[in-house]
Amino acid sequence: MANFSRVHIVGAGLIGTSIALGMQRSGYLVSIEDEDPLAEGIAQSLIGQVGEGSRPDLIVIATPILSIPKLVLQCATQYPDAIVMDIGGLKSEVVAEIEIFPEISERFCSTHPMAGREISGALAARGDLFEGRIWIYTPTSKSSELAVERALELISALGGKAISLGAQEHDQAIAGISHLPQVVSSLLSATLIDISDRDIGLAGQGLKDVSRLAASNPQLWSELLHANSVAVMAYLDILSKHLEDLSTSLQNDDMRKTREILELGRENHARIPGKHGGKKRDYWYLPIIIEDKPGQLAEIFDACALVSANVEDLTIEHTPGQESGLVTLALSKSDSSKVYGQLLKDGWKVHQPRESIG
Amino acid sequence: MANFSRVHIVGAGLIGTSIALGMQRSGYLVSIEDEDPLAEGIAQSLIGQVGEGSRPDLIVIATPILSIPKLVLQCATQYPDAIVMDIGGLKSEVVAEIEIFPEISERFCSTHPMAGREISGALAARGDLFEGRIWIYTPTSKSSELAVERALELISALGGKAISLGAQEHDQAIAGISHLPQVVSSLLSATLIDISDRDIGLAGQGLKDVSRLAASNPQLWSELLHANSVAVMAYLDILSKHLEDLSTSLQNDDMRKTREILELGRENHARIPGKHGGKKRDYWYLPIIIEDKPGQLAEIFDACALVSANVEDLTIEHTPGQESGLVTLALSKSDSSKVYGQLLKDGWKVHQPRESIG
Repeated sequence: MANFSRVHIVGAGLIGTSIALGMQRSGYLVSIEDEDPLAEGIAQSLIGQVGEGSRPDLIVIATPILSIPKLVLQCATQYPDAIVMDIGGLKSEVVAEIEIFPEISERFCSTHPMAGREISGALAARGDLFEGRIWIYTPTSKSSELAVERALELISALGGKAISLGAQEHDQAIAGISHLPQVVSSLLSATLIDISDRDIGLAGQGLKDVSRLAASNPQLWSELLHANSVAVMAYLDILSKHLEDLSTSLQNDDMRKTREILELGRENHARIPGKHGGKKRDYWYLPIIIEDKPGQLAEIFDACALVSANVEDLTIEHTPGQESGLVTLALSKSDSSKVYGQLLKDGWKVHQPRESIG
Repeated sequence: MANFSRVHIVGAGLIGTSIALGMQRSGYLVSIEDEDPLAEGIAQSLIGQVGEGSRPDLIVIATPILSIPKLVLQCATQYPDAIVMDIGGLKSEVVAEIEIFPEISERFCSTHPMAGREISGALAARGDLFEGRIWIYTPTSKSSELAVERALELISALGGKAISLGAQEHDQAIAGISHLPQVVSSLLSATLIDISDRDIGLAGQGLKDVSRLAASNPQLWSELLHANSVAVMAYLDILSKHLEDLSTSLQNDDMRKTREILELGRENHARIPGKHGGKKRDYWYLPIIIEDKPGQLAEIFDACALVSANVEDLTIEHTPGQESGLVTLALSKSDSSKVYGQLLKDGWKVHQPRESIG
């Protein structure tokens, strides 16, 4: 039921190349370009492109945030019959700059797939990167029905879940759920720059998790933070206020106040969605000791399959210098009992299922 | 080769009860007490204790940080033949307060197992909680050989990896690798208190990871932060400085400066140890699409076992409203090729192995 057939993508990074791969798999005629010949070459060879793409029905601008408005205008002008969409991480500026041009604005729809990785580039691309992911779309005030339809068709072809959101609302939400965590993770990591190798060698999973995002691309992220600086600064002000309060309560040995701040954080943490989005599910947790050798996990999952239990989530924890580790399965309450019984029978070092308190 | 047989534990929380379970499993005579009769009852029934423990050779103080010095003195006085150790998360104050009493100081060794969970209490206890974990020990200036020997015997009996560290060095290290990440995670979560349910519903793995520690116990953590306030405040000052720099660079639209801060964070992130501690290993990553149903993981791990590949780490990623997910296996480079080939042959939606850039 495709209503168009030719897609051209500008920008052969992780997102652009993933869109190319996914759309090609869905049967569209796909072409891709990049100002960097190396990236373009990799992406084109991944999709087997020969020669230029011609007369696209839909053009996807998949470049860093600052270049988007210019490229939308260029492409829309060059291909007067095409619809243009972008996949930038921010919406307000792009939408505002395009709305200045009513004729182009009509043929444009801005979007943002909530998918990405700390690793970037065409080589990291996957055609299924967007499967099941929320993909926000933000029409301009003048976007035609056709523009929105084509954008939605691409999102749907890639398995995304389209959600409509205004430009300002989008940028405000992203400041909190994406930009702020990135900043906090980077600042934590930067703060530890002078810690000794010995001391950092003692670190456990906590530091690893909280600092994970610090590995992200500094150039892309500084562009995003600056383009969304008003909303980000508002959050940094609140963060700074909390940080100051905590420093003061430590300084004054006001333990009640410190506990209040930590309690506020704990209370709000409960609102953050779990694996399936929306509300947290109630999982039960089953800790199992394994040896660090092939086949251990396979046997555990065989046991799960035997009792038809569905593993909802899983963590593997290893410890310095040891070849044994801890696997914790997250399961429904009833599945956790079934798996516990089975693993006990099979002779595993398994502990009673327990409720999450986190 | 046990050089003593009777262990008495004061404090039936997660750590105390886990020590009780583990020492009992290793053949020691174990008793446990807690000022909370409910916690004491649970712990005693877990280890099958009947009646009081008598004449312990080793007493382990496993209570919140503020009560440790008093309890060490009490227990050492009550049992003049016993060695006393604690497992508190901070060392300087405890060691200093005990060193005031030379005769007791001689029979005391302070320790800190680098193990814990966001969930707490006797029910969360596991006898193997310490297996392979670093367990720091900090003798006083007067600790006898016997005191150190018994502490080390307990650590070894529980599978811990003993590392000697001075009290000040310990507290300084912990401020960076444990207290700072806790604070940052709590502050991030607290900062988002006013975000709408809709917006937080859009959050992905990034926010989840960075805010995970915010679920920890506020009372225990405020005590730890206050007892280590000088070292923690020093880090908060650096954090505050970085935060201010970032706010200023956003305010002034100084993107170069913002990028510098993010680059500092990225650079230092590379020093944080991976799963096996010490240096990061070079894993290769293999992304596989799975359906959210029993048996999927079992089949994947069967394939891994078939080619004798050792799964080093694994993440499962699900997306809102979808019943399919992405499993990423971390493997050695050669194992990743073997598993890739096997999974392809078995008809999995598997992508080429790629190097970690994170």
